[in-house]
Amino acid sequence: MSELRVGIAGLGTVGAGTAALLARNADLLRRRAGRPIVVTAVAARDRYRDRGIDLGGCRWHDDARTLAEDDAVDVVVEAIGGEDGIALDVCSAALAQGKPLVTANKALLAHHGRTLAEAAEAAGVHLGYEAAVAGGIPIVKSLREGLAGNRAIRLQGILNGTCNYILTTMRETGRDFADVLAEAQTLGYAEADPSFDVDGVDAAHKLALLAALAFGGMPRFDAIRVEGIRHVSALDIAFAEELGYRIKLLGLARMTASGLEQRLHPCMVASNAPIAQVEGVFNAVVVEGDAVDTVMHEGRGAGAGPTASAIVADLVDVARGVRLPVFGVPARDLADHPIAPHDRHSGSYYIRLMVVDQPGVLADVSAVLRDHRVSIEALIQRARNPGQPVPIVLTSHEAGEADMRAALDEIGALPAVIEPPRMIRIEQL
Amino acid sequence: MSELRVGIAGLGTVGAGTAALLARNADLLRRRAGRPIVVTAVAARDRYRDRGIDLGGCRWHDDARTLAEDDAVDVVVEAIGGEDGIALDVCSAALAQGKPLVTANKALLAHHGRTLAEAAEAAGVHLGYEAAVAGGIPIVKSLREGLAGNRAIRLQGILNGTCNYILTTMRETGRDFADVLAEAQTLGYAEADPSFDVDGVDAAHKLALLAALAFGGMPRFDAIRVEGIRHVSALDIAFAEELGYRIKLLGLARMTASGLEQRLHPCMVASNAPIAQVEGVFNAVVVEGDAVDTVMHEGRGAGAGPTASAIVADLVDVARGVRLPVFGVPARDLADHPIAPHDRHSGSYYIRLMVVDQPGVLADVSAVLRDHRVSIEALIQRARNPGQPVPIVLTSHEAGEADMRAALDEIGALPAVIEPPRMIRIEQL
Repeated sequence: MSELRVGIAGLGTVGAGTAALLARNADLLRRRAGRPIVVTAVAARDRYRDRGIDLGGCRWHDDARTLAEDDAVDVVVEAIGGEDGIALDVCSAALAQGKPLVTANKALLAHHGRTLAEAAEAAGVHLGYEAAVAGGIPIVKSLREGLAGNRAIRLQGILNGTCNYILTTMRETGRDFADVLAEAQTLGYAEADPSFDVDGVDAAHKLALLAALAFGGMPRFDAIRVEGIRHVSALDIAFAEELGYRIKLLGLARMTASGLEQRLHPCMVASNAPIAQVEGVFNAVVVEGDAVDTVMHEGRGAGAGPTASAIVADLVDVARGVRLPVFGVPARDLADHPIAPHDRHSGSYYIRLMVVDQPGVLADVSAVLRDHRVSIEALIQRARNPGQPVPIVLTSHEAGEADMRAALDEIGALPAVIEPPRMIRIEQL
Repeated sequence: MSELRVGIAGLGTVGAGTAALLARNADLLRRRAGRPIVVTAVAARDRYRDRGIDLGGCRWHDDARTLAEDDAVDVVVEAIGGEDGIALDVCSAALAQGKPLVTANKALLAHHGRTLAEAAEAAGVHLGYEAAVAGGIPIVKSLREGLAGNRAIRLQGILNGTCNYILTTMRETGRDFADVLAEAQTLGYAEADPSFDVDGVDAAHKLALLAALAFGGMPRFDAIRVEGIRHVSALDIAFAEELGYRIKLLGLARMTASGLEQRLHPCMVASNAPIAQVEGVFNAVVVEGDAVDTVMHEGRGAGAGPTASAIVADLVDVARGVRLPVFGVPARDLADHPIAPHDRHSGSYYIRLMVVDQPGVLADVSAVLRDHRVSIEALIQRARNPGQPVPIVLTSHEAGEADMRAALDEIGALPAVIEPPRMIRIEQL
């Protein structure tokens, strides 16, 4: 059978890693795919940079947009990144040419997923994005195919390795967020501008894709409540440990009576829960289905190797002639699920207050919580230091999010409370 | 598009569970598969048993062999079981008729995998067996497709839920094997004749399939060193805990310089290793690939729901027109890998001896080990009870399997050693 000719747009870590893997495992891939998979064209800005790969036989495009139209390209790998701009142009051009598309671009798909899915399905070509979610973990394939027999009940994921590394290191060393972030930046685990990671945006993009796959709906990034990890303090992590929890930045999606709930925020989970054991740069996704019960996938969420592994798997699919609905059901059938109002969420909460240590504070706090129907499960008020700031930590029984937020607003306004109250949701997994 | 007409051969837990899931999620499956998936024929011995499912519209076959030839059947689900006999006849008949085949039968595939794969590929039809390995975990799909970009380095799996349940319960309760097995039989977690599970045969069947997929070789059940869990005692489990290990029945496959090594036996693994956390009836498979590093999958390995989940996923593949090489590469290209001699294995070992507590025993044991180039890493000789039987436990540094076995033969022959020495391999994961 004829070779599959690959054009790679973007030769950063992802693009160059893909070219390297295709070359290294060429024989193996030919046997698995039933035909050779060969890079025939690339596009990048700097032609003369050494990327450690041999691009001698490749056609070079200075403009990625022309790569998609190159007759020597059967399938386009978009490895440029960004939710719009050139990446969107390249992807649209590939599909318009009737060429299958493989991309690692979660931002692009979270924002334009339905449009691109419709274009791919209209053209009758495959759109692979295994690399867009949880790196080397084949979770897109699991949801779209391996677990296709199930009605999804819930999914939870650790979807950002940078955040998980920071939280793990904070727990292991007792150091504070800013300190660990700075070190992660030095080590190359976090970007110079870390906001995309630590504010939860990157993980929320991935959650939007996973939820679309699991629940057969349109990716709705705008429907996700997103909170990052900047406000998680060393104090919170220590208290969590004492209470039998670990703090993880989790993406959660589940179908509720009032619609699809999608949340991405720090959570306290029981220390002995499987997902609590996922540490460092590792990612994990737990899927709960009506037939399968729970399945957990764990692996590296980023890096040249894992990302290339996912892209090459998509290319093998293309070479084998696999062609599937992008989000598991045809794009025209994707539901526009009602969005469960975030304020209707109900659960347990961890609250940390910094208060001036003086008589009556606890009575005031308790009264406000009572007035908002929040019942206290546990309370820790350790250090006595009259007249000085001390932390008070409490956990609630099941309470409504709207009630909790109203209570925290009032508590934050109490004269003895000297910092905005911090709240972390406790998740029963 | 026209409906996919399913014939189910065998209406035990698996067959009936599949029919129930197809009915329950019919709408969802129609959207995902692009066409309805409908059970049109079944075969089972007892026509009048209540299985809790509506088979009113189905054609009934008393002989499963005729079901495969029924013109109202597009795809055959074999849920009879057994490595030969009717199951093999039904599967062969389906493929001979040019019909895709879905089976949960690990024994059949471990013994006849290559022949059936060749028949399926010659007929140009899909052969799905996701349910044959690790129940609801989509590990076949991960290896054959999701991780297809990788050269496999190693895989490890907890592949038998009954054994994992027994080992977990032994650890949690301190009770002995026979006692926990009897309870598991009462609870329905173990069969009346438990040998298939506890002697490792079932797990070894699955390992043969996973190794074939990972390394592109023929399934070779006969090449696996198989040891079950009957000899694991409460004492071993307690000592393991003390040494920082847990005992798991693991299937292991890796490519070595002397060929493909496949082993299925109790192992000691570090208590904090991810696979050590997989408890009770859960299964797990860890795959190590050259690009992806390690990926772990964890979920339920048995039961009506998880097994049906896997079978229905295969049926969705068939309905979508997916058709892939059965073991990841065409059957004619499956390698006949050299088999790494088990005696050439090298690793660390845990050894437990029951000895009469008298002076000089330890000197004799140490001398034998030294003579066979086995160096002692740690030794526990706790209870002093002169003249009575006491356990001695030791762990070795890296040693050759042949040396270790020769040493144990000699040690077992020492007059003071009153039970055959027990050995458990320590695995660095």
